[in-house]
Parts: sequence; structure tokens; C-alpha cells
Amino acid sequence: MKILITNDDGINAKGINALTFALKDIGDIYVVAPDRERSATGHGITVHHPLRVQETNNFGDSVQSWWVDGTPADCVKVAIQGLMNGLPDLVVSGINLGSNLGTDVLYSGTVSAAIEGIIHDIPSFAISLASVDSNPEFGYAADFAKYICTEIKQQHLTIDTLLNINIPSLKSNEVKGVKVTKLGTRRYENCVEKRFDPRGRVYYWMGGKVKDINKDDGTDIAAIEQGYVSVTPIHFDLTNYKIINEVEGWNLKK
Amino acid sequence: MKILITNDDGINAKGINALTFALKDIGDIYVVAPDRERSATGHGITVHHPLRVQETNNFGDSVQSWWVDGTPADCVKVAIQGLMNGLPDLVVSGINLGSNLGTDVLYSGTVSAAIEGIIHDIPSFAISLASVDSNPEFGYAADFAKYICTEIKQQHLTIDTLLNINIPSLKSNEVKGVKVTKLGTRRYENCVEKRFDPRGRVYYWMGGKVKDINKDDGTDIAAIEQGYVSVTPIHFDLTNYKIINEVEGWNLKK
Repeated sequence: MKILITNDDGINAKGINALTFALKDIGDIYVVAPDRERSATGHGITVHHPLRVQETNNFGDSVQSWWVDGTPADCVKVAIQGLMNGLPDLVVSGINLGSNLGTDVLYSGTVSAAIEGIIHDIPSFAISLASVDSNPEFGYAADFAKYICTEIKQQHLTIDTLLNINIPSLKSNEVKGVKVTKLGTRRYENCVEKRFDPRGRVYYWMGGKVKDINKDDGTDIAAIEQGYVSVTPIHFDLTNYKIINEVEGWNLKK
Repeated sequence: MKILITNDDGINAKGINALTFALKDIGDIYVVAPDRERSATGHGITVHHPLRVQETNNFGDSVQSWWVDGTPADCVKVAIQGLMNGLPDLVVSGINLGSNLGTDVLYSGTVSAAIEGIIHDIPSFAISLASVDSNPEFGYAADFAKYICTEIKQQHLTIDTLLNINIPSLKSNEVKGVKVTKLGTRRYENCVEKRFDPRGRVYYWMGGKVKDINKDDGTDIAAIEQGYVSVTPIHFDLTNYKIINEVEGWNLKK
């Protein structure tokens, strides 16, 4: 099994290191990851300037690895169409430091890399550790990723769908189990902070406090809060089919 | 009616100019747009460095306008939470130079700005002109946008849904009509081009030729090819509900 690993925290992050070492036993690993942190890049790709790519030895001699000075989606494209011989059997993105729940997935570079995998018909999953600690323990999440790799191959996940996995920040014996979930809804409030630079000129910082609009039972947000691993099947078809008939009833004949 | 206008081609693009002048008659216009072209930024937001914002007079004295050195999604956030007094009644993103069809919407800054609108419960639409000409005529698209503004207000579009509108590159009397569509599927092939710089070092350019995987009747891609305006209702819930039961049947109890 050829496994392509990427992330959005950058090639030097602890999460991708833990993931790579966990998956080395079960396949040929290719790591192609951003040169530095690229969180919140969404599904951006780099079309206005060229990309540099550099082979690295971050993961020892048995793992081929490269950094790319681009986004996670760039990394998957460059890996598949420029660096690897043939397509990978699996794309794994993570382990992200911090959760990717609900509406977060729109902004998440981690999830976008896995979406790029399924756009190319390659089974893919994204995995994130719901920790706010800057140096958490990735062991349980890495073991879970390894387990899912084999399960995905056995179960033949539909090719238009990836799994978005979030791991609660708990010791392995405290995790309550696994729930298959839908995405909740969250919003960031007061996210634009106005400041003044030393010359008195205005600038703005993005930040903000998360507000969960929908964390009902069945959502990924609820599962993590309750101490479960959350597994959400995600596709890339944003069509709202329920509304098509309604909009057809509008007077659109301009 | 307070209308927030943005785009991803940048504040100096002809498309946003045509849009702004068309909508001036029907509401108070606020333009908050990127300082330069930001195509293919997806739903990226800027969290690693601060944003600069500058008031401009691009659209005359009756229109308040600012540029932001960030992504389209940044522009909507900064507008709503930093620049405007109160929420807009409508977010309009465009007119993009070039179509945003099918899988393109994942990469599209134009569409992401409208998604940012509906995340904040503001009715929103994105509008793109399916032209490959570098200097096309935006008149018909601008008229259509103006018409949709009033229609959206009258019809009370569901707050979790935006309209992704694509206009065929035809004279107004050649347009066949309007179709309400679902997203097709497209993929970019051979999109990574390897080159060598003057010092002999490798770099990669993203590009590629579009391949339509699904442009069946009913899709946005088919509508545009056939000379119709395409209107696709889009939401931001990526959950693949059809697969939840199937994945629940897996052995996930690690």
C-alpha cells in the first residue's frame, strides 16, 4: 500500500511525525507537506507564483519526503502529478494540532488536502487531535490512524467521500468510543481585532471566539465534547438539492 | 438595502466596477475587496499575519470602498466586523472574470466570499462571467445581478444557502434563458508543470487542462455550454448523509 501523507501544520510538526512513524509498518510512505504552517488556507492553491519543492530526510532513510512552499492542496497535486510514480492508494492528512469540527472544515487546510485526494478518486482521510495544548501526546491518534488505514481498504469507502476524524484530547483508556457523525455548525464571533502599529497606523488581526450554533447530538462537535472519537463522512458536492425546486419556482426569466 | 460587494479579482477589476455601478440604484453600496487578484484562494483566511485596510475612492463619492490585503473571505469578515455599521442585507461577490462551475467552487475565492456571507446568516450570491476573453463585456451580467438582488429579497432565500450564478459569454439577445442546476464535476489534469530556473534549479507551475467528469443535463457545466445562465443553490454542509449508515456498520471500535 502506497500512502501519501500531508498536513497543514508543516513538515516539521509533531503530528505528521507521529503519523508517519505509525504508518511505516503498513505501507510505503511518501510525505509531501508544506514547508511551514499553513493553517486556515482552506482549499487554496497557488497559481500566481511557482512552487519550490525540496527533498528532505525528516523521517529517516525509509521514507521519501519533500516540502513544498505551498498549501496542503498544492502538496497533494504536486505529489500525485509531479513527485510520485503512480497514484497513492491512500491520502492521509494530519495529525492536525487542534480540532477540525463543523464549519471549521471549510477553512481547514488539513481537510482540503483529503478533499484533493478524493477529487483524484483516491481514498482519503483527515485526522485532527482536539487539543489546545501546544505539545500534546499524539500516540492514540496515530494508532487510530493506522487502524483506519486498514479498515478503509477493507470496506471500500465510496470514492467521492473522505472521512474527517477528530480525536478527543484524552488518555486512550478514557476515550468513550467512536461515533459516526454529521458536521455541526460553528461561527467565530468578534473575530476582527483592530490595533495600531508603532507608527499609529491601523491593522487588523483575525482571531475570534468560537460559538457553536449547532452541537446537537449526532454532530461531530457533540461527540468530541462527550469524549468520543468523531468520524464524519464528507463529500465535495456543495449543491443544496433540497432548494433546487424552490428556486425553480422563482421568476428568473430576466 | 445595504449591499456588501466583494470579489477575488481585486478591487481594480472591471467586473467589480460593472457590478458596483449596476447596484448603486437599488441600495447603499459598501465595497470591500482584495487589493490585488486572489483567485484560487479557496476559503482561506489570514491568521498568521495582520491585515492592512485602506479606504479608496474607486467608485466615486457615493460608494464607500476599502481594499484589504487578504483573501475574499477575509474581506467579508473585516467588512462585517470591522468596517460597516451593522450587518449588510446582502453580500454579492463578483463579477468574476471566468466561470466558477462544478468542482471549481472549492477553489473559488468568489464563491467563498458568498459562503462567508451565509455563515453570518446574510443572503448572498456569487456571479461569474464564463468568458475566456481578458476584456469582456460585463453589461448583461451586471443587469442580471441587479435583478437577482431584488428577487432574493422577495423570495426569502433560505439563510443557509447561496446562489452560485454563471453567465454565458454571449450577447444578451443570444442567452437562451436561465436554468437552476446542480454542480457538475471537473478535474484538472497534468496540472503540475516542472520547469528549471536560470540557475538550473527546479520549480513547478500549477495550471492544467480542465476535464469535465460530469457535465450531464442538469449540471451547471451543461447549462453554460448550452447558452443558459446557470443558478446553483449551494450550502456549506459537506456531510455525506447517504454514507453515515454504511460507515456506522464498520468496525470502528478501536
